[in-house]
Amino acid sequence: MITVSIIGAGNVATHLFKAFSKTKTVSVKQWYSRDLNKISSFKNKVEIVADLNGLAEADIYIIAVSDDAISSVSEALPFKDRLVVHTSGSVGIYDLDKKNRRAVFYPLQTFSKEAKVDFKQVPICIETIGKKDYPQLKSLAVALGSPHYRVNSDQRKALHLAAVFVNNFTNQLYRVAHEITESEGVEFDILKPLILETAQKVQTMSPYMAQTGPAKRNDKNTIKRHLKQLKNEQHKAIYNLLTNTIKKTHGR
Amino acid sequence: MITVSIIGAGNVATHLFKAFSKTKTVSVKQWYSRDLNKISSFKNKVEIVADLNGLAEADIYIIAVSDDAISSVSEALPFKDRLVVHTSGSVGIYDLDKKNRRAVFYPLQTFSKEAKVDFKQVPICIETIGKKDYPQLKSLAVALGSPHYRVNSDQRKALHLAAVFVNNFTNQLYRVAHEITESEGVEFDILKPLILETAQKVQTMSPYMAQTGPAKRNDKNTIKRHLKQLKNEQHKAIYNLLTNTIKKTHGR
Ligand SMILES: NC(=O)c1ccc[n+]([C@@H]2O[C@H](COP(=O)([O-])OP(=O)(O)OC[C@H]3O[C@@H](n4cnc5c(N)ncnc54)[C@H](OP(=O)(O)O)[C@@H]3O)[C@@H](O)[C@H]2O)c1
Ligand SMILES: NC(=O)c1ccc[n+]([C@@H]2O[C@H](COP(=O)([O-])OP(=O)(O)OC[C@H]3O[C@@H](n4cnc5c(N)ncnc54)[C@H](OP(=O)(O)O)[C@@H]3O)[C@@H](O)[C@H]2O)c1
Repeated sequence: MITVSIIGAGNVATHLFKAFSKTKTVSVKQWYSRDLNKISSFKNKVEIVADLNGLAEADIYIIAVSDDAISSVSEALPFKDRLVVHTSGSVGIYDLDKKNRRAVFYPLQTFSKEAKVDFKQVPICIETIGKKDYPQLKSLAVALGSPHYRVNSDQRKALHLAAVFVNNFTNQLYRVAHEITESEGVEFDILKPLILETAQKVQTMSPYMAQTGPAKRNDKNTIKRHLKQLKNEQHKAIYNLLTNTIKKTHGR
Repeated sequence: MITVSIIGAGNVATHLFKAFSKTKTVSVKQWYSRDLNKISSFKNKVEIVADLNGLAEADIYIIAVSDDAISSVSEALPFKDRLVVHTSGSVGIYDLDKKNRRAVFYPLQTFSKEAKVDFKQVPICIETIGKKDYPQLKSLAVALGSPHYRVNSDQRKALHLAAVFVNNFTNQLYRVAHEITESEGVEFDILKPLILETAQKVQTMSPYMAQTGPAKRNDKNTIKRHLKQLKNEQHKAIYNLLTNTIKKTHGR
């Protein structure tokens, strides 16, 4: 049995607590929140604490607080030489206070409090300073049923940046499509199957191979017509930039 | 029973033939290809023809040829006053020869010959000039099990343009993410569950509501760090443009 204490009461902390509670090999010893009201509904399921000095011994401490607070929370921990991880894609491993054994347990997914999370669909990127801390964190990922990867700092930061492209920027393209359809009074719903199929296609095929469309074919007439059709200057700028990027990728 | 003849032997024609063959209410009368070799493997299932003059009477003729050829093929049809549709998102309905009853049957999905198509996931956008031709085309979509929408020309063109954003441009963002991960020697696979989740989220939530991340929060430090991390000028330009668009959308 691996014992874990969770620090923080946000999206990631809450989903981790629920997921660990369902495993047979991980037991959540304590759950810390600076505001007990946030987690009081769980008080029959786990010991909840509002003071870092109340933290008892555990195998792993998971700091799942806002990026800006990771460093100060790790400093405030009242013990040393224990395994302490944060869950951020962008905060440095060395931002954790060096009195403890430092590591990162970064779940590469988008979490929100309402939505259910299937940890089979949450790749865990593990970074450790000492090699010997890796197996236990790997066991933690295995207990969750999550795919897991060992990464270094540069790789984790590259993944975090790439995630902005496939998550935030892609979602903004969906938003632009919503604006375009709305401007003609036609339902955005019609695009939903295509959105899903586009994401599904690259599960088994590289994005390079999956590309189609006027930019890849360098179909000048269609491109010209589309640009004329676009009234919004920002939409036009996105169209131009991404069309040129596709052309470059495919040697046009 | 609705009788249909298919003109063309590409992706769309082939998937439509297979799908109609499975229905109980639509029968494919003839299948035309200018090159019979392309469809000779189907000759035991349907009458194949290589000459437009060989086309017999049918309720609906579906012209599923390259956009550029739609107009000339429709002109070459040796009959009049029958229902003739094309399947393009961008070609005008009036590009069809006016000697026949003209309409559009636009399947808003991405087709490739190898990949299987589930027509339940293929919204059909129907445009007719005369109101009376709509019910039969609707029946055709119903027979396929497809969601169907009545649209006008402007709406169909808006959908076609929006599809470029959610399909081609989104796929290019996946490609950029692939380049970013590859440059650090880390697997693109790690991003696949996030790609799917991002597409799934907007099936039930608007893209506006689904947005998260540094641009939406206007988290200047992270944005600055990401821009420093990006070495490729085109990646940087995409980052800047989409970050600014997100800020604008969310009033930052
Ligand atoms: N959300 C995601 O999709 C996602 C995905 C992967 C990784 N992550 C990473 O996971 C970590 C947590 O993210 P999240 O989304 O769970 O954040 P969140 O929902 O905003 O929650 C942040 C939590 O941190 C607590 N906190 C902030 N400052 C604190 C301090 N000085 N002392 C103690 N607690 C403090 C907050 O407490 P109060 O409630 O009292 O304010 C809150 O419980 C971050 O490092 C983030 O980068 C997030
Ligand atoms: N693919 C998609 O994802 C998709 C989605 C929605 C709508 N559409 C629309 O569906 C239509 C067909 O697209 P597709 O992807 O099936 O195209 P495709 O795979 O490239 O096939 C085009 C077909 O048109 C035939 N053709 C071209 N010029 C011709 C001519 N002058 N006379 C007779 N036949 C001619 C070709 O014959 P050969 O084989 O002899 O060259 C080929 O069979 C287009 O209007 C397209 O915009 C496509």
